[in-house]
Amino acid sequence: MSIEKIKNKVRSVHDFPQKGIVFRDLTTVFKDPECLHELSILLTDLYKGKNITKIVGIESRGFIMGPILANNLGAGFIPMRKPGKLPADTWSESYDKEYGKDTIEIHKDALDSNDIIVLHDDLLATGGTMLAAYNLVKRFNPQKIYVNFIIELEFLKGRNVFPSEIEIEALIKY
Amino acid sequence: MSIEKIKNKVRSVHDFPQKGIVFRDLTTVFKDPECLHELSILLTDLYKGKNITKIVGIESRGFIMGPILANNLGAGFIPMRKPGKLPADTWSESYDKEYGKDTIEIHKDALDSNDIIVLHDDLLATGGTMLAAYNLVKRFNPQKIYVNFIIELEFLKGRNVFPSEIEIEALIKY
Repeated sequence: MSIEKIKNKVRSVHDFPQKGIVFRDLTTVFKDPECLHELSILLTDLYKGKNITKIVGIESRGFIMGPILANNLGAGFIPMRKPGKLPADTWSESYDKEYGKDTIEIHKDALDSNDIIVLHDDLLATGGTMLAAYNLVKRFNPQKIYVNFIIELEFLKGRNVFPSEIEIEALIKY
Repeated sequence: MSIEKIKNKVRSVHDFPQKGIVFRDLTTVFKDPECLHELSILLTDLYKGKNITKIVGIESRGFIMGPILANNLGAGFIPMRKPGKLPADTWSESYDKEYGKDTIEIHKDALDSNDIIVLHDDLLATGGTMLAAYNLVKRFNPQKIYVNFIIELEFLKGRNVFPSEIEIEALIKY
C-alpha cells in the first residue's frame, strides 16, 4: 500500500469546524486495519536508525499514532496535554490562536538532556501549536528534536514558523 | 517483566484532581520503553484469537494504548470523543457525572453489525463513562463487545454497573 492509497482513505469534511474549512479526517484511515498498519510502518521508517528515545504526542489526535511509533521504535511515549490534565509538576507554554490564547503542558520529568525526540501531531496547519510544543521541549535541552505530522496543509505555509534547521516530516500533502 | 513491575512504575499523585483522591498516573509507564512494550503485549494477549475487528478508545487517555492494541491485533482503531470534535455524522450518549452531565460521541460509520469490538480506556473508577460508551456501541448491534482497562480501582465497584454477561478485563488492580 502506498501513501497515495492512504491519502485516498482520508475523508474531506467541508465546513468543519467552521464555514469555508475543509477538514481532513483521519478516522477513516485509522478504522481500516490495513491502512493503520501501513501508516505505522511509513511513520516508523522515517525515524529508524536515528536512536529516537521519546515520542511526544500532542493531545489528543497526536495520541493515536504517537504511541504506535514509540512502540515500533523502542522509545517511550510522552503525552503533551491541555492545562490541568497532567497530575504531576508541569512546564507550560501559551500561544496565540485565531481567537485568544491556548496553553499546552508537559510533565517536568518527561524528558531530559540525553533524549532524542520526535514531536508528533496529526496535521500541520498554521503551525502554532507545534511551535509552542517545540519551544516547550527545547527547555529540556535534548540532543535533538524532530517534528512529524501525518498530514501537511502546504498552502498554509506552517513550516515557515519553525527555525530552518529543524527536520520536519509529513507523509501526506495537500 | 510482570504486571507487578508495571504496577510499580505507576505514579500515585495525592489530592489530584481534587483533595482526597489518589490519582494513578500511567505517564510514568508509557515513558519507559520496556514498560510500554510489555504493557502492549499483556493487553494484546488478552484478545488474541478472538477475531477482534475494532478497538474503540475513549478520549483521550484511551487513545494511547488503544491504537497499539488495534495494530497488534490487526484491527481498526475508532476514537470515541467529546462533543463537537468528530467532523462527520455522529451518535452521542449523555451520562451523569458527580456534578452535571457529560456526553461522548462516535461516528455513525465507525462500526457495523459484523464487528467484534474491544472498548478500551485507561482506568475503571465508577464506570459511568464506559457504561455510556457501551450503550453507544450497542446501537450498532455488533457481534460482541469486550470491555478493557489498564487499571481497575476495585474499591469503587465500577464493574457492578455493567450487565453481568459482559467480559471486563483490567490488568492492574487497586
